[in-house]
Amino acid sequence: MISLSVLKWVPPFARGSVKEYRVRWALEEAGLPYAERVLTPADQDAADYRAVQPFGQVPVYEEDGFALFESGAIILHIAEKCEALMPRDAKGRARAVQWMLAAQTSVQPAVDAVTALDFFYGEEEWAKMRRPGAEEFLRRRLGQLAGWLKGREWLEDRFTVGDLMMVTVLRDLRHRDFVGEFPALAAYVKRAEARPAFQRALSDHLALYAEAEKAEAAA
Amino acid sequence: MISLSVLKWVPPFARGSVKEYRVRWALEEAGLPYAERVLTPADQDAADYRAVQPFGQVPVYEEDGFALFESGAIILHIAEKCEALMPRDAKGRARAVQWMLAAQTSVQPAVDAVTALDFFYGEEEWAKMRRPGAEEFLRRRLGQLAGWLKGREWLEDRFTVGDLMMVTVLRDLRHRDFVGEFPALAAYVKRAEARPAFQRALSDHLALYAEAEKAEAAA
Repeated sequence: MISLSVLKWVPPFARGSVKEYRVRWALEEAGLPYAERVLTPADQDAADYRAVQPFGQVPVYEEDGFALFESGAIILHIAEKCEALMPRDAKGRARAVQWMLAAQTSVQPAVDAVTALDFFYGEEEWAKMRRPGAEEFLRRRLGQLAGWLKGREWLEDRFTVGDLMMVTVLRDLRHRDFVGEFPALAAYVKRAEARPAFQRALSDHLALYAEAEKAEAAA
Repeated sequence: MISLSVLKWVPPFARGSVKEYRVRWALEEAGLPYAERVLTPADQDAADYRAVQPFGQVPVYEEDGFALFESGAIILHIAEKCEALMPRDAKGRARAVQWMLAAQTSVQPAVDAVTALDFFYGEEEWAKMRRPGAEEFLRRRLGQLAGWLKGREWLEDRFTVGDLMMVTVLRDLRHRDFVGEFPALAAYVKRAEARPAFQRALSDHLALYAEAEKAEAAA
């Protein structure tokens, strides 16, 4: 049986962005059932969790006593079990991994630089000065990616973990209109979001916060 | 035959940090010969290069007409050919990938936040205000990693691509003394740097800039 550690509470802006939902999506595409292991903040800091995940992050994937962290590593491990996520030949696999890494290391940092200003540092003086440069760099990266996607349905000739990861990175911008400035990107994200596996994953992820949202709305 | 795109010129602070040297290191550990494809800035921007690498970065790996970018993806592709870089069993592979991703997505962003201030934005007013927070977060991450490494020679029970990637990330801090504040980390980096494959890779990487350094010294 597979389990996935998830967080009982996150601030509203993070709902729909916590990295466990990427893994849920991969598990849904692969048709693999899993259980949630819901963590409180105290659980995250507990010695037994840190002994597995030294940075205290979610998700941790566990399967019959085998533990793994880092959403990208977990998704690749799942993809090894399932051709729907990654081709079986060495070149096809390498290209899927290439796009997964491009999402995480060439696009995510540009996204995070802007979202950090939006969600964490908006009121700080340095953040106001930093914003124009961060947004310019993000637009350049998005433009390069949109250029690649022009005339393509997916990053390669079929859906892979590369698309799964890239779309979750682009969705972190959903509170702003950057993606909408690039029609090829906007269509790509929409295409991925239409996948039933994506919809199930996001809905199960957001269900964690339904109770908190009700309480917040009543407050 | 394998080729690797590399840059003819980079600014002094980047010499020893350009991501192609990670791949050289993996190729040296695997005992695979390769040729350099030396790019000028114009080559990097040329349409034929962008058609392969939309972000214009190095390295691009090519082997008999098959092209691949993203240093992490290239290193994993090489590791598939070579047990010295990654165990053959599914769990051992997944744990090696986990640490490679931890290096690239949980440690590198904390490192880059500080090195960007040091090398690119040091004179800007916002950078001076940003520095204390960025350095505090970096020290927290390094402390968590040092805790994991205490009593361990490598991140798992043998050297893998996870260590290779983690050490190249930590070496990006070599202009400062952060790593030295954590004896377990400093010893770990030193242990990795003592590997003959690392030394050959770094020396071949730095040889690209020997001519520029001579010219700069004379100027």
